[in-house]
Amino acid sequence: MTQDEAKALVAKRAVEFVEGGMRVGLGTGSTATMFIRALGEHVKQTGIKIRCVASSDASAKLGKELGLEVLTLAELPELDLYIDGADEVDPQLNLIKGGGGAMLREKIVASSSKRFIVVVDHTKVVPVLGKFPLPLEVIKMALPLVLFGLNKLALNPKQRKRPDGSDYLTDENNFVVDCFCTAITDPAKTASDVRNLVGVVEHGLFLGMTNLVLVAGDNGVTEMTR
Amino acid sequence: MTQDEAKALVAKRAVEFVEGGMRVGLGTGSTATMFIRALGEHVKQTGIKIRCVASSDASAKLGKELGLEVLTLAELPELDLYIDGADEVDPQLNLIKGGGGAMLREKIVASSSKRFIVVVDHTKVVPVLGKFPLPLEVIKMALPLVLFGLNKLALNPKQRKRPDGSDYLTDENNFVVDCFCTAITDPAKTASDVRNLVGVVEHGLFLGMTNLVLVAGDNGVTEMTR
Repeated sequence: MTQDEAKALVAKRAVEFVEGGMRVGLGTGSTATMFIRALGEHVKQTGIKIRCVASSDASAKLGKELGLEVLTLAELPELDLYIDGADEVDPQLNLIKGGGGAMLREKIVASSSKRFIVVVDHTKVVPVLGKFPLPLEVIKMALPLVLFGLNKLALNPKQRKRPDGSDYLTDENNFVVDCFCTAITDPAKTASDVRNLVGVVEHGLFLGMTNLVLVAGDNGVTEMTR
Repeated sequence: MTQDEAKALVAKRAVEFVEGGMRVGLGTGSTATMFIRALGEHVKQTGIKIRCVASSDASAKLGKELGLEVLTLAELPELDLYIDGADEVDPQLNLIKGGGGAMLREKIVASSSKRFIVVVDHTKVVPVLGKFPLPLEVIKMALPLVLFGLNKLALNPKQRKRPDGSDYLTDENNFVVDCFCTAITDPAKTASDVRNLVGVVEHGLFLGMTNLVLVAGDNGVTEMTR
């Protein structure tokens, strides 16, 4: 099975958790995109009524194109279910997210949902988080201060740049700093350390936020729970 | 002595802490403004060389008008001394700042300084913080989520509005929420509680950041230390 086939498979499984009347959060990224497509088809076929909120402009646009009712979080501040991908998942179901730079909005939508189900292919499941760089959203003015603090924490930070060398900017017009940690042995401590740095708006560690991860592998979809 | 006379007195005293060659952070607000004026005069009279960074555009503009060399924090990321006012000071020298909405930049500049000296008139000294509303800087999209969390913490939040009823926006284009706490009996716990809410960029509690507060009262300037 290719990685794309795996993503399509797990996206389809995730749709089974959506019931009529639900308020559903739409994630961002390649697997979340497949989920949104599968969800659009499901709604069309079954005629169930759901309302959605998206964690990015791109996902909102896609959802609307597929005929989904996509509202803002201000219009729909409480959600029943949020489905999104992740860059890494550990055995405790802690996540790194934010490779796409949308972790702030993703964390806001996840925190607004009663349930958060993660969809990944098996390459994202790791014994220890941190091989994937941990992204932080940082206030521009605070960049030198934040880099100083991260270096002191030995988190190996590097400001994210665009391919043309210009500063990468989030939807909120902030910088992104990626921490090349290699291994995050105590995610709660790292989360607290970076959260306490003045100028850090949000980080890509999602700890204790999900209790179900759907993993697509060569033998179909398996579930990780806690 | 009027409140303005008191502010002028304490501003003048603060100037005595500035030495030639120092990198000085300029605060924001009425007392900080008096300090900037006194500093400009002092530099003109003594001819000492200092470089400054300001915590707001207004203070940067004023400093330049007075002939001070005002740089950005990117140009001058480490400071020797930051002088700024506060909205409340408790006996442990914990502060509430942000009545003017600039607490994020103020905290960034304070965190970039080796020393932070606070200048206030005696009306700002309180036995317990919290009569002055505690301001939080909040990502727009997260407003409902943050208000929900703050209400759960019983912190009595209210979004700050402009006199014309429109949303108050910070320099970083975020909302401000004021928490009408009445009494913050455990500032460290309150700081941690609000910092852990997804969507809160920064809060107005400045804990353990200063070891000297200059207080202007009827009998001149007194010092609070820890």
